[in-house]
Amino acid sequence: MISSSVTRPAQPPKTSAPGTLAIVPFVSVDNMMRLVLAIGVERFLVELAGYIEEDFKRWPLFDKTPRVASHSLEGVIELMPTSDGSLYGFKYVNGHPKNTRDGRQTVTAFGVLSDVGSGYPMLLSEMTILTALRTAATSAVAAKYLAPQDACCMALIGNGAQSEFQALAFRALLGTDKLRLYDIDLAASQRCAANLAGLGFDITICGSVQEAVEGAQIITTVTADKQYATILTDNMVGSGVHINAVGGDCPGKTELHRDILLRSGIFVEYTPQTRIEGEIQQLDADHPVTELWQVIADQAPGRTSAQQITLFDSVGFATEDFSALRYIRDQLAATGLYSELDLIADPDEPRDLFGMLLRMQGNIAAH
Amino acid sequence: MISSSVTRPAQPPKTSAPGTLAIVPFVSVDNMMRLVLAIGVERFLVELAGYIEEDFKRWPLFDKTPRVASHSLEGVIELMPTSDGSLYGFKYVNGHPKNTRDGRQTVTAFGVLSDVGSGYPMLLSEMTILTALRTAATSAVAAKYLAPQDACCMALIGNGAQSEFQALAFRALLGTDKLRLYDIDLAASQRCAANLAGLGFDITICGSVQEAVEGAQIITTVTADKQYATILTDNMVGSGVHINAVGGDCPGKTELHRDILLRSGIFVEYTPQTRIEGEIQQLDADHPVTELWQVIADQAPGRTSAQQITLFDSVGFATEDFSALRYIRDQLAATGLYSELDLIADPDEPRDLFGMLLRMQGNIAAH
Repeated sequence: MISSSVTRPAQPPKTSAPGTLAIVPFVSVDNMMRLVLAIGVERFLVELAGYIEEDFKRWPLFDKTPRVASHSLEGVIELMPTSDGSLYGFKYVNGHPKNTRDGRQTVTAFGVLSDVGSGYPMLLSEMTILTALRTAATSAVAAKYLAPQDACCMALIGNGAQSEFQALAFRALLGTDKLRLYDIDLAASQRCAANLAGLGFDITICGSVQEAVEGAQIITTVTADKQYATILTDNMVGSGVHINAVGGDCPGKTELHRDILLRSGIFVEYTPQTRIEGEIQQLDADHPVTELWQVIADQAPGRTSAQQITLFDSVGFATEDFSALRYIRDQLAATGLYSELDLIADPDEPRDLFGMLLRMQGNIAAH
Repeated sequence: MISSSVTRPAQPPKTSAPGTLAIVPFVSVDNMMRLVLAIGVERFLVELAGYIEEDFKRWPLFDKTPRVASHSLEGVIELMPTSDGSLYGFKYVNGHPKNTRDGRQTVTAFGVLSDVGSGYPMLLSEMTILTALRTAATSAVAAKYLAPQDACCMALIGNGAQSEFQALAFRALLGTDKLRLYDIDLAASQRCAANLAGLGFDITICGSVQEAVEGAQIITTVTADKQYATILTDNMVGSGVHINAVGGDCPGKTELHRDILLRSGIFVEYTPQTRIEGEIQQLDADHPVTELWQVIADQAPGRTSAQQITLFDSVGFATEDFSALRYIRDQLAATGLYSELDLIADPDEPRDLFGMLLRMQGNIAAH
C-alpha cells in the first residue's frame, strides 16, 4: 500500500488563456454578410456551386444519414450530418412557419465542420444566409445539367427570402436574365424586383402563375405554404421546360400537381429523403427517379430530348451544407472575416481536466 | 401584366447590428470554468444532480433518439439530441483515443439548447467540462438510489480526467469521503490525490485493483482503454457493493468480467443504447435490466437487499446533457458568465434576407 502523503507538485505557471488547439473559427451573421459582399454575391454563388458540384461528383464517398428530426406542433428542428471520411459536417436547422408573426425567421440554421481524424471542430458558422445561398447554387447546378439549351427566361413563383438568390444563381451559371415574378402577395414581388433593380435583369411582375410561366424555359417554385398546394397545374407546363421545385421540402408540403410529375423526368438529391419530403411523396414509392449526382458524375443521362420536361425535386441534402461549410472554411485565411471561439477545453495535460479548474482558481485568486 | 418600372422604395435607416432575437448566449470554456468556480464544484454537482434527477422523473415526456454516430478508423463523432416538448437540446461529442498523443482531449463536446416553439437556439455551451460534471452527477444520483446505506468508502479504478469529479459528486450526494485510488499509471493516481488534497478526503493510493476494492462499499470503474478489458474480476466483488461502471461506454469497450454482471442487479439509462455500448453488451439481448428513471420515479425497486450487488452500467444519455444545459441556462442571468453570439440572421423583415445584405452593403459604403 502506498501512503497518501501526497502534496501538490510544483507546477510551472500556466495561463488560463486557451491554446490554439482549443480555438474554433466562428463566422457570425455579420461576418457572413461581409464575406458575401466582399466576394460578391454572384461570384460567391459560382464558386459555391463549384464546391457543390465537386462533392456531388464524389457522392459515393459520403456517409449519408437521413436527417434527424424532432417534430412539434409548431415546427421541426433537424440535425443534418454527413462526412466524406476526412471532414465531418452537420447543420442545425429549424422550420417554424408561424415564426414570422413574432418577427422571427421561418428557417434559421448554423453548422459545424470538423476534422474526422481528431473529432475537433474546425469551423462554426451561421447558416441561415449560407443555406439560402447553397440552395440557390444547388438549383443552378441541377439546371446546368437539366435545363434546355440557351434558357434565358425563368418564372419565379414565390418571391420570399429565397427568390433573389435563385435569380442570381441562375443568371450566374446559366445566363438566365429574364425574370417573370409571381407571388400571392404582390408586395413580395415588388420587393424582389426592387432588391434586384439595377443588377441588369429584365423583370416582369405577373398577375398569375399562368401569366408568369408564359415563355419561360425554367420554372422555379419556391413558395412557403406548409401544406399540399397546387401552385402549378398540368396545363401550365409546356413541353421542354425545366422545373426547379424548391418549396415542397417536407412531409405534407408540395407545390406541383401530380400529373406534372407523371409527365416529367424526375431528378432528386438523396432518394430515401426525397420520397418522404419532396414532390414525389405524391407518387408510388417505386416511381423511377434519377439522383442528381449520377448525372453530374456521368453515370446516368440528364435531359434526353428537347421536348422532355425535367424536374429537379429539391429538398436540400446534408452534402450541400457540407460543401458550403468547406467553401466558407477556405475563405477564412484570405478574408479574416471570422472571430475566435473558446469552444474546446484544452488542458495542458489532457487527462487533467480538474487540474485545469484548479489552476484557473489559482489565477483568479492571484489577481 | 404589371410593368416592372420598380424603383427601390425609400427605407428608414436600418443598422446591421443584430437584434435581440438574433443573439445566442455562449458559455466558453473560460466562462464555464469561472461558473463552476463561482458556484463551487460541489454545490454545482449537487444542483446539477437535482436537474438530472428531475428530468429522470419525467422521463416518459422525452423524445428519445439513439445517438447519431459517424465512425472512422480514428474515432467517432456523435450527435445526441433530445426534447421534452418545450426545450430541445443536443450535444456534439467526439471520442478519439489517440488524441492525447497530440496534446488533444480524447473527448470534447459542446451543446445547444433551443426553444421548441420557435426553433431558435437559446444557449450554446462548451460541454467538455460540463460532460465531466454531468457524468459524475449522474453516477452519484444513481448511487443515491442503489448504493448500500451509509457507504463511506469508494474504490476509484482509473484516475484520469473523470476521477476527481466522481469523488466530489459522491461525497457531495452520499458523504463518501474515503477514497481508494488505483490506476495502471501511478502518476495518474498521484495527480488525482494531489488535485483533491486539502479538500477533506481520506485518500489511499493502492498498488492493485484487488487492494483498492478492500473495504469499499462503492466501486467506480472509469478507465479509458477502448477495448474489452477485465478491470474487475468476479472474485474482487463482495456481496452488497454498488458498482458504478462508467468506463465501458462504447461498442467493444467493457471493464467488468461477465460473471459479475450475472450476479448483479443491473440498472441502465436507456436500454436500447446500453445494450450496444454498455457492460451488458456482454449479455444476451433479453437479460433483464431496470432503467434508472423507473427507480427514481418509484416505478421499480432499486436495491432489494443488503447483500445484493447493484450495478449502474453508465454510458451517458442525451437527457443528462439536456439537464446540464438547462442548469447552465438557469445560471446565466445571475452570474453574467457568458458572451453574446451573433448566430442567427435577424432581418427586419423575415422574408427579406437579400434586402438585409443590400442594407449592409449600404452601411459599409456609407462609412
